[in-house]
Amino acid sequence: MAKTRLDLDRIRAGRRAIDPMFLDTPLFPCDTLGRVLGCAVSVKLETANPVRSFKARGTELVASGLLDQGRTAAVCATAGNLGLALSWSGRRRGLDVTVVASRRAPAAKLDRIRALGTALELVDGDFDTAREHAAGIARRRGVRLVEDSLDVETCEGAATIGLELAEQASRFDTVLIALGGGAMATGVGHVLKALAPGVEVVCVQPLGAPAMTRSWRERRVVTTGSTDTIADGVAGRSPIPAVLDDLLQVADDAVLVQEASIIAGMRLLLEHAGLVVEPSAALGVAAVLEDPGRFAGRHVVTIVCGGNVDLDDYHRWVAR
Amino acid sequence: MAKTRLDLDRIRAGRRAIDPMFLDTPLFPCDTLGRVLGCAVSVKLETANPVRSFKARGTELVASGLLDQGRTAAVCATAGNLGLALSWSGRRRGLDVTVVASRRAPAAKLDRIRALGTALELVDGDFDTAREHAAGIARRRGVRLVEDSLDVETCEGAATIGLELAEQASRFDTVLIALGGGAMATGVGHVLKALAPGVEVVCVQPLGAPAMTRSWRERRVVTTGSTDTIADGVAGRSPIPAVLDDLLQVADDAVLVQEASIIAGMRLLLEHAGLVVEPSAALGVAAVLEDPGRFAGRHVVTIVCGGNVDLDDYHRWVAR
Repeated sequence: MAKTRLDLDRIRAGRRAIDPMFLDTPLFPCDTLGRVLGCAVSVKLETANPVRSFKARGTELVASGLLDQGRTAAVCATAGNLGLALSWSGRRRGLDVTVVASRRAPAAKLDRIRALGTALELVDGDFDTAREHAAGIARRRGVRLVEDSLDVETCEGAATIGLELAEQASRFDTVLIALGGGAMATGVGHVLKALAPGVEVVCVQPLGAPAMTRSWRERRVVTTGSTDTIADGVAGRSPIPAVLDDLLQVADDAVLVQEASIIAGMRLLLEHAGLVVEPSAALGVAAVLEDPGRFAGRHVVTIVCGGNVDLDDYHRWVAR
Repeated sequence: MAKTRLDLDRIRAGRRAIDPMFLDTPLFPCDTLGRVLGCAVSVKLETANPVRSFKARGTELVASGLLDQGRTAAVCATAGNLGLALSWSGRRRGLDVTVVASRRAPAAKLDRIRALGTALELVDGDFDTAREHAAGIARRRGVRLVEDSLDVETCEGAATIGLELAEQASRFDTVLIALGGGAMATGVGHVLKALAPGVEVVCVQPLGAPAMTRSWRERRVVTTGSTDTIADGVAGRSPIPAVLDDLLQVADDAVLVQEASIIAGMRLLLEHAGLVVEPSAALGVAAVLEDPGRFAGRHVVTIVCGGNVDLDDYHRWVAR
């Protein structure tokens, strides 16, 4: 079994702390999309819930853990989806949540965070700037800093997707996972390597935000000076060493895709599955588009991980 | 308990014949949509499956019943979604399926039926014309004619939605159900009247296709000469007497909504839930838009029943 910071028993037990609304999400074949891509394709849909992403699986674990410890507040930096999910999980439990995000994050994400009554602080700069700012708040106020991918609950929450996939593992060959900080990739990968080692775990990142993929390839942390991608949910510059160590244990591959492929992927998911998704959720389809020979004849599952997108941006990208 | 043609034990047992992919669909609150509508709103999402509608719940029962009887073929008339679902259920079981539809049915539905390898026959005229044509085929070939809403499996399949809602019934007050032939309304209504009699069952139909609603109000079959609505999935002219009898037992109300409200409902489901839906799936939201006072402060569940829509039409309708 892969030696990571994650624990299979804890992941299984964790399911009980997660609102069932976020569990057992749809997994369904999409034949006409598969015909376009030259392989069988199934979608694991993580957007049909009140926060429209998989992140609540993790924040449910975080928030219930905080309650168990008698703590009443938390702060996180976010590209958007973690903050939205933590806001939801925190509100349900009466926690005082502060979220820090880049002023450039999609309005759809920021508006939805505000709509949950969360204290939202915006910073100039990118996600890594927000991370520093959130850390400062946590220090000053003495509250829990929730760090996506570093905090093992965020990975083990995402790993519950892996449990659901493992039950169907006889039916597919490859899972395509959007790679950003690494919580979803290490989580799902950990479970599949344990329960369905025959399934290939392929991580997908934008060429414009390649830090974690380069790190995985070079087996050491590689940071980048900036990011340039519409896939805001996975646009980090500074991989976390402990997460990279885990990823090295569970990922079979990590690939980079172009922006045009991400947009084409979003368009295909709309046309063939009726899904409006954020760019990060189209990374898997983009990977098949860029290397169809590699996936030909295989059955791939792509995790549609988020649907928080500004509709104006979406229409501009997807309209032909 | 309401005396209808449906049977609760058979509905419960039926779940085992339905591919789990079509069961236990997402049910989730949509806070910002509720804020716009002035009530709490949850979505029961029936589109995240390979046929993008609830209809497979029924066709799974039909197809497995045919197999049990050693039959190998079936024919149905369809507005689109039943034919698509029967094609899917039939293909999985090696059944020879013929589908008859109006030439005017949405290309999205017809294309998806063809893509499943089904024999598709198109007729001039509307759904009721297709119904006559399908009946002729069944007679000539001696194969089973599957009749939506008349065949109790189609109602009892839809009724499994009711089982899932009943488990959550303490959390909501009203369910809004698109009304066409009546399979979904009688199915869901039957179960809720049995298991959660406190839940109000409200059927919603377009003003441009009011035959079943008028029939329900007058307690006798009222047919109309034509239909005029974008909600193709519910556009029938000739209610089936046995289905009306059932509907009279289980519906608390049946309301009619304008086309502009249906379009506004589609737009709200896109903006607040990220869902691209066909017009029939927006009837529930349309009903709240037209009579907000009636639903103020209540918690309504709206069943998003189908997502097969031509994207060109969709963009034309929904773009402001």
